Amino acid sequence: MIGKAFRVSIFGESHGKCVGAVIEGCPPGIEVNPDDIRRDLERRRPGKDEFSSPRDEEDDFTILSGVFNGRTTGAPITIVVWNRDVDSTPYEKIKDIPRPGHADYVARIKYFGFNDYRGGGIFSGRITAALVAAGSIAKKVLEKFGIEVLAYVFQIGNVRMREDMTLEEIRENLPKSPVACPDLEASRGIVDLLRDIKNEGDSIGGIIEAVALNVPVGLGEPPIDTLDGDLAKAMFVIPAVKGIEFGAGFRLAQMRGSEANDQLTVRDGRVEFRTNNAGGILGGMSNGAPIRFRVVIKPTPSILKPQRSVNLREMREVDLKLRGRFDTCIAIRAVPVVEAVFAIVLTDHLLRWLSWRGYWSSGGRSTG
Amino acid sequence: MIGKAFRVSIFGESHGKCVGAVIEGCPPGIEVNPDDIRRDLERRRPGKDEFSSPRDEEDDFTILSGVFNGRTTGAPITIVVWNRDVDSTPYEKIKDIPRPGHADYVARIKYFGFNDYRGGGIFSGRITAALVAAGSIAKKVLEKFGIEVLAYVFQIGNVRMREDMTLEEIRENLPKSPVACPDLEASRGIVDLLRDIKNEGDSIGGIIEAVALNVPVGLGEPPIDTLDGDLAKAMFVIPAVKGIEFGAGFRLAQMRGSEANDQLTVRDGRVEFRTNNAGGILGGMSNGAPIRFRVVIKPTPSILKPQRSVNLREMREVDLKLRGRFDTCIAIRAVPVVEAVFAIVLTDHLLRWLSWRGYWSSGGRSTG
Amino acid sequence: MIGKAFRVSIFGESHGKCVGAVIEGCPPGIEVNPDDIRRDLERRRPGKDEFSSPRDEEDDFTILSGVFNGRTTGAPITIVVWNRDVDSTPYEKIKDIPRPGHADYVARIKYFGFNDYRGGGIFSGRITAALVAAGSIAKKVLEKFGIEVLAYVFQIGNVRMREDMTLEEIRENLPKSPVACPDLEASRGIVDLLRDIKNEGDSIGGIIEAVALNVPVGLGEPPIDTLDGDLAKAMFVIPAVKGIEFGAGFRLAQMRGSEANDQLTVRDGRVEFRTNNAGGILGGMSNGAPIRFRVVIKPTPSILKPQRSVNLREMREVDLKLRGRFDTCIAIRAVPVVEAVFAIVLTDHLLRWLSWRGYWSSGGRSTG
Amino acid sequence: MIGKAFRVSIFGESHGKCVGAVIEGCPPGIEVNPDDIRRDLERRRPGKDEFSSPRDEEDDFTILSGVFNGRTTGAPITIVVWNRDVDSTPYEKIKDIPRPGHADYVARIKYFGFNDYRGGGIFSGRITAALVAAGSIAKKVLEKFGIEVLAYVFQIGNVRMREDMTLEEIRENLPKSPVACPDLEASRGIVDLLRDIKNEGDSIGGIIEAVALNVPVGLGEPPIDTLDGDLAKAMFVIPAVKGIEFGAGFRLAQMRGSEANDQLTVRDGRVEFRTNNAGGILGGMSNGAPIRFRVVIKPTPSILKPQRSVNLREMREVDLKLRGRFDTCIAIRAVPVVEAVFAIVLTDHLLRWLSWRGYWSSGGRSTG
Repeated sequence: MIGKAFRVSIFGESHGKCVGAVIEGCPPGIEVNPDDIRRDLERRRPGKDEFSSPRDEEDDFTILSGVFNGRTTGAPITIVVWNRDVDSTPYEKIKDIPRPGHADYVARIKYFGFNDYRGGGIFSGRITAALVAAGSIAKKVLEKFGIEVLAYVFQIGNVRMREDMTLEEIRENLPKSPVACPDLEASRGIVDLLRDIKNEGDSIGGIIEAVALNVPVGLGEPPIDTLDGDLAKAMFVIPAVKGIEFGAGFRLAQMRGSEANDQLTVRDGRVEFRTNNAGGILGGMSNGAPIRFRVVIKPTPSILKPQRSVNLREMREVDLKLRGRFDTCIAIRAVPVVEAVFAIVLTDHLLRWLSWRGYWSSGGRSTG
Repeated sequence: MIGKAFRVSIFGESHGKCVGAVIEGCPPGIEVNPDDIRRDLERRRPGKDEFSSPRDEEDDFTILSGVFNGRTTGAPITIVVWNRDVDSTPYEKIKDIPRPGHADYVARIKYFGFNDYRGGGIFSGRITAALVAAGSIAKKVLEKFGIEVLAYVFQIGNVRMREDMTLEEIRENLPKSPVACPDLEASRGIVDLLRDIKNEGDSIGGIIEAVALNVPVGLGEPPIDTLDGDLAKAMFVIPAVKGIEFGAGFRLAQMRGSEANDQLTVRDGRVEFRTNNAGGILGGMSNGAPIRFRVVIKPTPSILKPQRSVNLREMREVDLKLRGRFDTCIAIRAVPVVEAVFAIVLTDHLLRWLSWRGYWSSGGRSTG
Repeated sequence: MIGKAFRVSIFGESHGKCVGAVIEGCPPGIEVNPDDIRRDLERRRPGKDEFSSPRDEEDDFTILSGVFNGRTTGAPITIVVWNRDVDSTPYEKIKDIPRPGHADYVARIKYFGFNDYRGGGIFSGRITAALVAAGSIAKKVLEKFGIEVLAYVFQIGNVRMREDMTLEEIRENLPKSPVACPDLEASRGIVDLLRDIKNEGDSIGGIIEAVALNVPVGLGEPPIDTLDGDLAKAMFVIPAVKGIEFGAGFRLAQMRGSEANDQLTVRDGRVEFRTNNAGGILGGMSNGAPIRFRVVIKPTPSILKPQRSVNLREMREVDLKLRGRFDTCIAIRAVPVVEAVFAIVLTDHLLRWLSWRGYWSSGGRSTG
Repeated sequence: MIGKAFRVSIFGESHGKCVGAVIEGCPPGIEVNPDDIRRDLERRRPGKDEFSSPRDEEDDFTILSGVFNGRTTGAPITIVVWNRDVDSTPYEKIKDIPRPGHADYVARIKYFGFNDYRGGGIFSGRITAALVAAGSIAKKVLEKFGIEVLAYVFQIGNVRMREDMTLEEIRENLPKSPVACPDLEASRGIVDLLRDIKNEGDSIGGIIEAVALNVPVGLGEPPIDTLDGDLAKAMFVIPAVKGIEFGAGFRLAQMRGSEANDQLTVRDGRVEFRTNNAGGILGGMSNGAPIRFRVVIKPTPSILKPQRSVNLREMREVDLKLRGRFDTCIAIRAVPVVEAVFAIVLTDHLLRWLSWRGYWSSGGRSTG
C-alpha cells in the first residue's frame, strides 16, 4: 500500500486478466471523468511510437467501485485495466532460463516456483497502468489546491536537456517531442540515438525529472514519514527505477555549504528561496519552492542481442536469445508513471497535512 | 516507524533530555551487549576528530525496556541516549531568523510556531544517535544469518575512492582513515580538502557507499514494499540525505541493456551474476549478490560564512552570521548511521521473509 | 486492511458492479479451488431459506489476479463477486429519509452527500460476500497446520443452544439445521420464533459462537496487536456486529478468580488447561486451548413495520414504511462470515508467528 | 501502535526500570500540564484503597520528548513512568510454575523462555500507567471540540448500578464512591461484597461502562477501520478485558428490530435519535449520540487460594500458593485506563476525520 491517508494498492499480472488499483481514503465528491483516465493511460500505452514495444492494446478499463454519479463516494475505488493481446507461449519455452536484468530468477526462488512467470507477471511494466489510473484520481484531488505535477525526460544516453528551461517552455514543448523531452534539440538527438540502438537490438537507460508546483509549506511527517522518503519509496514501485535525487542531488557531494544552502528572501511580502538546491524539501517537508527530483531508469532488460544465462533445471550456462519487439528505452513510457506516483504521494501527504490544519482552524465542536 | 516486522520509532530533540528509539518485533533471545552499542555510538560521536563539531559528549545511554539477563525478551526495546553539554542561548537570539539549509522556516510553519527550535530540535543530526543504537541491535539479529553490513565514504568534494577495491581491502583500510574512506590516498586528499574548507568557514557534501553481504535471495515484498524502496525511504530519515542510487545508479542512463544486464552463470553449483550493476536488487528483491547503494549527503548547512536570511517577525531580509564550530563534512559522521539504518531495514525484511519460509518448511501443527 | 502479514482489503457496493477483496501476503503455492469458494459463498447467499431476503442471485465470482495454475502465486489476489438482480428504484424514493438502524444518516454527513446510498452502498451486508471469498483462501492456508474454524448460531431471541454439546455433535448436527444452530431442539424453537416474527413484519437479533481448534500456542503480538483485539476489530467489519466476548465473557463479572482461572494440568506429556474460561487466549495470545468467542448480531434494521424518521431535506419527522422482503434474522447468514473473518485473522497471526519461529529454527544462512 | 493519525506505542515491564508511551502525530500547541497527568495516574495507582494491591508507589514520571514550553511541539512525545518498590524474589521461586489466569505459560513458549517473567513482565497491569499518561494528552486534544469521556464501574459480582442515572448524577456521585460506581447504593453493596471476597482470599470480575459526549457525526473509517472496531481492539490492550459491547450489546439478541432501531426525530432543528441502542455508532461511525460501551474485566488472576498448576521443568502437576496482597477486583482500577484508551482512539479518529473536512472547507491553495 502506498500512503496512509490516500492509500493505493495494486494487483494484477502482465498476462493475467487485468491489472488494477484500489484507492482507499480518497475524499468524496471528486469528479471522475473516464476520459481523463483514458488520456493518462494513453500516454503510457505501448505501441504508440517507433521505440516502444508494439503490444498494441487500447487500455480498456472499468471502474468497479467507489464512484457514483461521476464522483468519488468516499468508499474504496477500484479500477481495473483489462489485458488483451497476450501471447504467453514464448514464456513457456524460456521459463527455466531467467532473462538477465529481469526478476525471473529471484521470483522463482522467493515464490517457491509458484509465481506467474508469463510476461514477467507482477514484475512487468504492465502494472504501471494501474498506477497511472490511480494517479489520475490523485491529480483531481490536488487540483483544488492548485497543485500541479509534471514529468519529462531529462536525459537519455549522453543526451541531456538544457537546464535553464522555464516551466512554461517545458509545458509548451513537451507535446511536440516524440520522446517526452521538452528540449527539442535534445529531443532530436535522442531520436537519432534511439534509432541506432534499436538497430543494434539493444536498449538504453534514461533519467526523468519531475516537478510539482504550488505545494503548501509543511507536507511531510518527520522524523520517519518524510516527504522525500515517501516519494523515494513510491518511485521504486515503478519497475526499472534504480535511483532518485532531489534538487541538486548527487552534485551536492561537490558543493560547498555556502553554495548549496538556499538563502531566504522576501518577495511580495512572502518568504522565498533564492535558489532551489533543496528541490523544495527541507527536513523531510515541502518548503514552498517547487519540488523537483530526478529518477534514473535502467535500460529495458529485454534486448534482441544474445545474452548468457543459466538453465535452472539443468544448472548449466546457456545462450539466451529473446525474440519479439521491445521498448528501446522504457524511460520514455515511464514519464506519465512517475507523474502519477508523484501525484499519489502528494495527495497522501496533503490529506495528512490537512488534519492538523483542520484542528487549529476549527472553531470547535462540529456535528456535521 | 521504520519497518513492519522489526519496527523502529525514534523520538527526542537536540536540546531536550535525550534522543531515543523504540524497537518492536525484535526476536527474543538476541544478546545485547552495551559495549557494542557504545562502540557504535562512539563512531558517530561529535568532537572526535578535527573536522567534526566539538560538542564533546560521551553518549551515555540507558536501555529502558525489552532486555532481561542480557538478552532481548520479545517485548518493545527502548534505548535512550541522554543529552548533555547543551547551551541553547545562541538559538534564542536567532529564533526568528531561519538558518539557510536548515528546516527552521518550514518547521515554524508546519508546527504553528510550537516546535522546539533549540539546536534544530528533531531536525538535528543528534537524532541519528537513536538510529545507531537501534541499528546495533539489528546487526545482532542479522549475525545469525551471516549478514554483514558495511558503509564508508565514497566521495567528498571531487575526491573519489578507487572503485576496484575489494571488500577485504576496504575492511582493512577503513580504521586507518580519519575520514572513513578506505582508499587511503583518497583519504589523504579528503583531509587536505577539508582543512581548506574549514579555514574558509565553509562546509562540503559527500557520498557514502554501503554494502551488505550474504543477504538471502528474495528479501523484499513487491509490488509495494520493495527492498530498494524501503531502504530509500529509511535513508531519508537521516538528515541531509538528498539522493540514493543502487548498483550502477545514475550511470544507467548512459548504459546499454547489453552492458547493464547482469548476466547469469553457474559457479560451484550455484547461480551467480557476472556483474552487479543491479546492486543486488532485482524486481525490488535481493538477488543474492551484494547489495550496494550510495547516498549523497548535502554539505553541513551550518557554516561560519555570512548568509542572507529573513527575520520572520519583521518580514525583512537580514544578514545571518552563525557562531560556533560545526562539522566541516557531516558525511563522515553519517557513515555509521547509514550502516545502522541499512541493518534495520534488512532485519525487517529478513523477519518478513522468514514467515513464508517457515510456512513451507514447517511439518505442520506445532503447539510449542 | 485487515491484518499485517496476510492482509485483506475489501471494496464494492450493494448496487454497484461488484463487491471484492484484495489479499496481500498470502503464501505462494496454496491450492485455490473455485468450488470451495463457491461453496462458502453459497452458505451466506440470500434467498436460500424462508427467513432470508429473496435477492436470488447465485454469487458469480471471478479471480482477477494472484492465482496461476490453480495455486496462489505470492502476488496480490483479487476476487470479485459480481452483483446482479439489483433494483435501485426504491432507494431513490427514500434517499432523503434515513432508515432507522441503518447508516444512511451518518453516511450522508460523513461523505458530504456523495455516498452511494443505493441498497446501503458499502454498509450493505452484501460486502460480506467479499469477506467470505477471502476467508475461503485463508482456510486453505490454515489447513496445513490443521487449524480448523467453526461458527454456528448460539442464540436467537430467547432460544439458546445447550452449552454441553461436543464439537463432534456440533459438526454433525449443523447441516441438519435450517438456521445454523447445532442444537436441533433449539433449532426448531428458533424456526417457530422466526415464523412469528416474520408474520409481524419484524426482525430479531442473535448470537453466533465461533471456535478454532489446533491453534499453536503463542499467536498474537502483545502489547498492542493482541489476538483477541485483532479478532474483535475484524468482527466489527461485519455489519450488525455490536459486541464480542471471549470464553466466559460477560459472565466473568460474576465469577470468582478461583472459579475463572483455568488451572493447568499435564495430559499425555502435554500441558493442558482444566477449563477454558479464557476462551483460548491469555495475555492476548493463543494458549493452545480452543479459541472460543461469541458475537452479538443486532436485529435486521430493515423491517416492514412502520417507523419514525426524518425527511432531511424538509427537516421534519415523517413515517417511513419500507417495502420488500428482508431477512428475519441476519445472524443466520452471518455465520459463514464470522467463520471467514476468524480464518483471516488467524492466518495473519499464524504468518506473523512463523517469522520468529523461522528465525530460531533456521540453521543460518540460506540463499534459497 | 494504537491509531494511525494519533499513534500510541507502549513499552516497559512490571519490574524493569519503567513503563512508558510514545505518542506520534499529536497536534502541536496542546497544553501539557504535568499535574493533569499526575492526577490521572493517581486514579489508577495501587495501594490507595483497601481492595487494591499495596504496591505503594507514587507514580513518578518524566516527559522525555515532544513538549517544549509546556506545549506539545508536533514531535513524538515520550512519557516514562518510573518503577519503584519492586521485589522480584517471589517470582524466581515460581518461575517454572505458571500462575493460572496469567500469561506465564504462553509467554514462556512464545518468547522461547527469554521473556521477563518478573511480576508478569509486559503482561502486568503496570503497563496501563503508560496508557493513562498517553490518555491524559489525548483528553487535552479532545477538549477543543468539547468531547468528554467518562468511565465508571457498572457491575461487580451480581451488584449492578441503576441504568436510569443521568450523566449529571453519574458525574456528581463518582468521586463519592470508593469503588468508582456512581450508584451509591450499589457502591455500598460492592464494598460489602469485596470485603467478603477479600476475606476468602479470592477475587472477582466486573463490568465498566464508558460514555463519550459531543463526538461529531462521522468519526470512523469503514469498511475496515470502524470506530467500534478500533475501540474494541484498543480495549483488549488492557490486561483482563475479555469482552466489549456497544449500546444494548448482547441484549440485542433478544430484541426485535422495531425495538432495537433508534428512530430519528428533529429537536431544535437538529436530527436526534429517540433511543440509543446503537451506543452512538452506526455503520462503524459515530452518529452524534453519546458513544456508550461496556467492557468486562475478568477477576484478578492472582489469588491467595491454592490452585493447581504444572511445574514445567518437571512436567508434573503441583499445588501453587501465591503470597502477597492482590487487588480484590481490578475492574475498579481499570476505570481510568478504559477512559484513557477511549480518549486515545477518539483522538485518532478525530484527527483522521478532520482531514476530509479540511479538504472541503479549504478555499484552496495555502502555503502557510
